Amino acid sequence: MKAIGADSAFNLSEGNQFYEFEINSLEPKQYELLVKIDAISINPVDTKIRQSPVDNAPRVLGFDAVGVVEAIGDNVKHFQVGDEVYYSGSPSYQGSNQTHQIVDSRLVARKPQNISAIEAASIPLTGLTAAETLFDVFNISHNPEDNKGKSILIINGAGGVGSIATQIAKQHGLHVITTASREETHQWSKEMGAEIVLNHKNDLSAEFEKYEISEVDYIFCTFDTDRYFEKMIELVKPRGKIATIVAFKDKQDLNLLKNKSVTFTHEYMYTRPLHETEDMQRHHELLSDITDKIESGKYKPTVNKVLQGLTVDNLYEAHKQLESHSMVGKLVIQVAE
Amino acid sequence: MKAIGADSAFNLSEGNQFYEFEINSLEPKQYELLVKIDAISINPVDTKIRQSPVDNAPRVLGFDAVGVVEAIGDNVKHFQVGDEVYYSGSPSYQGSNQTHQIVDSRLVARKPQNISAIEAASIPLTGLTAAETLFDVFNISHNPEDNKGKSILIINGAGGVGSIATQIAKQHGLHVITTASREETHQWSKEMGAEIVLNHKNDLSAEFEKYEISEVDYIFCTFDTDRYFEKMIELVKPRGKIATIVAFKDKQDLNLLKNKSVTFTHEYMYTRPLHETEDMQRHHELLSDITDKIESGKYKPTVNKVLQGLTVDNLYEAHKQLESHSMVGKLVIQVAE
Repeated sequence: MKAIGADSAFNLSEGNQFYEFEINSLEPKQYELLVKIDAISINPVDTKIRQSPVDNAPRVLGFDAVGVVEAIGDNVKHFQVGDEVYYSGSPSYQGSNQTHQIVDSRLVARKPQNISAIEAASIPLTGLTAAETLFDVFNISHNPEDNKGKSILIINGAGGVGSIATQIAKQHGLHVITTASREETHQWSKEMGAEIVLNHKNDLSAEFEKYEISEVDYIFCTFDTDRYFEKMIELVKPRGKIATIVAFKDKQDLNLLKNKSVTFTHEYMYTRPLHETEDMQRHHELLSDITDKIESGKYKPTVNKVLQGLTVDNLYEAHKQLESHSMVGKLVIQVAE
Repeated sequence: MKAIGADSAFNLSEGNQFYEFEINSLEPKQYELLVKIDAISINPVDTKIRQSPVDNAPRVLGFDAVGVVEAIGDNVKHFQVGDEVYYSGSPSYQGSNQTHQIVDSRLVARKPQNISAIEAASIPLTGLTAAETLFDVFNISHNPEDNKGKSILIINGAGGVGSIATQIAKQHGLHVITTASREETHQWSKEMGAEIVLNHKNDLSAEFEKYEISEVDYIFCTFDTDRYFEKMIELVKPRGKIATIVAFKDKQDLNLLKNKSVTFTHEYMYTRPLHETEDMQRHHELLSDITDKIESGKYKPTVNKVLQGLTVDNLYEAHKQLESHSMVGKLVIQVAE
C-alpha cells in the first residue's frame, strides 16, 4: 500500500516535489469504505490545492477513483466487499493518489459495468459538478419534455466539466450552446452533443448574433469567470440563472444582476462532503443516476489521455498537462492492472 | 382627470417640486385597461426614481393602485368594465399618482372583496416582490407540508416587503425569523407572523446563538445589502439561497459564495414588465393568489398610515416619511372617496 504526496506547497517550476511513501493498513469506520484503487483522474482543482499551504504532511492530492471495495464500516448500506465502485471523494480525507483509500460510502456509486476502470475514472468529479449545477442549481427537470425550448450556454465546452455537462444537458432536452476556439476542441464539443459551438476568441454577443441566438435560460461558466461576468449577464434571459465553478480574481458589481433579476451561484462540488450536510447522500444518488445513463448508452466517458502507473513522474507530468490549459476532456492514470 | 408629476429630479431639501396637471382622455389598447383610481400606496422605489433624471416631462411616479376598470383594450381577458382591480404596474408607463391610469392587464388582479381600497393599495408591489422571491427565486413549494423544517431570515421584517413576505412564508410552513430594532417594529413583525424577531442593532451571529438558531435555508434582505452581504453568507446553510431587493453601494467578493455553494439573486419585481417577458402574466397569477389568500383570511393588509387626497402636499409628505426610514408597514393615499 503506497501513496504519493508532498510536504509543502510547490510550483511546477520548482521541480517535482512529489514523493512516494508507504501507508499503514487503513480501517474503515461507520459509513466508510476501504477501496483498492484501479484508476484515478487528475482535475484542475488538484493543481490549485498543490499550490496551497499543507496542514498535515504529507498531503495526498487527488479526487476521482475507481476500484474495488476491500472492507466496509458498520453503517455502510448499498455496498459490500468486492463491489466495483467509483467516486470523487471529500477534501476532508487524503486524496486518491494512492493504491488504497478510505472514502465515505454516501459519496460513492457502483461503477458502470459497460466501461473500463480507466473510462470510469473520468466521470465522478466532473459528472457530480455538472449534475449539481444542472439539477440542484438550475433546477432543470429530470424529464426532458419539461425542458423543451430551454437553452444553455456552457463556456469552455471541451473541458472536463464542460464535456459531461454538455451530455447531461443535451440528454435532458436542453438546446446546448458551448464555446471553444481550436479545431480540436470545437470537434470534441460537437461530439459531446453541443448543437452550436461558438468561438470564444470572438465577442460572444457577436457570436450570438451570427447564430441568431437571442438570450439563453442558463449559463454555466467553467473558465475565467472575471472575463465573462458582465457578458453572461448580457446574454442570459430576464430571470435567468448563471453558475460558475471558477473563483474570481476581482470583486464584482452585483447591481448588474438587478435589471434582469439574475440568479448567480458559485457552485462548489465539495460543499456537501465538506460540511457533511444532511443530504450528502445526494452524491451517491447523482452518481448512481450517471451510472444508469452510461449503462444505457446515454452518456459516454470523457477520457482523452491515459498515463500508465501511479508514479511521481506521471503525477508531475499530469499536473503539467493540466496547467497548460490545453486539455481536451480528461486525463486518467491507471493505478493497477 | 388629473395627475401629479415633476419635470426634473429633485431632493426633498430643494422644496416641493411636484405639481398638479390635467391629463387628456386615455384610451387602452390591446392588453391595456383604463382604471379610475381609488387609492395608491407609496414605496421606497418612488423616492429613488424621484431623484433620477427625467426622460419625458412631466414624469408621474407611483406604483400600486386600486380602482375600477373604465375601459378595456381588444385583447384583454379576465376583466371587464366595472371590475374592481389592483396592481403594481410597470416602469414603462406613467405611474399611479393620477386619478386615471393605463395599465397592462397581464399585471392586474381582482381586488380582494373583503377589504377596503385603502387596505388593498398596500399590497401589490410588496406582495409581488415577496411572492416572486419566495416562489420563483427560493422556489419554495405552494404546499406547506413540503416546506416543513425549512427556515427563512427576513432582514427588516417590519418594512413593507418584509411585512407581507413574513405572512406568505409563515402561511407556507416556513419557520420565519425576522429582524427589527424598535419596540414598535418588533411588535409589528410578530403580528405579521414572525416566530423570532432578532434585534438588528446587535451582531446577527450573536442573535442566532441567543435563540439557538444554527443556519437558515433562505435569507431575504430588504435593507442595506452591503452591510449584510458577508453576514448573510455566514448565516445561510450550505447550498442555501440569498436574495436582496436593495442595490449595493460597493462591489463585492463573490468568492465568498463558493465554500457553501451559495445562490445569490438580485430580485427586481419590474424585470417581467420591463422586458415584457413571455411570462409577464405571472404577475396576474401571483397577485390573484394573494387575493384568494386575503379573502380566505390567510394574509392581511399591511397599511399603517393613510393620507386623504391626492395632492402635491400629501405626496411630498409621503416621500418625506418614506425617506425617514422609520416607516412600519405601508403608507397609503386615498385618491377618491
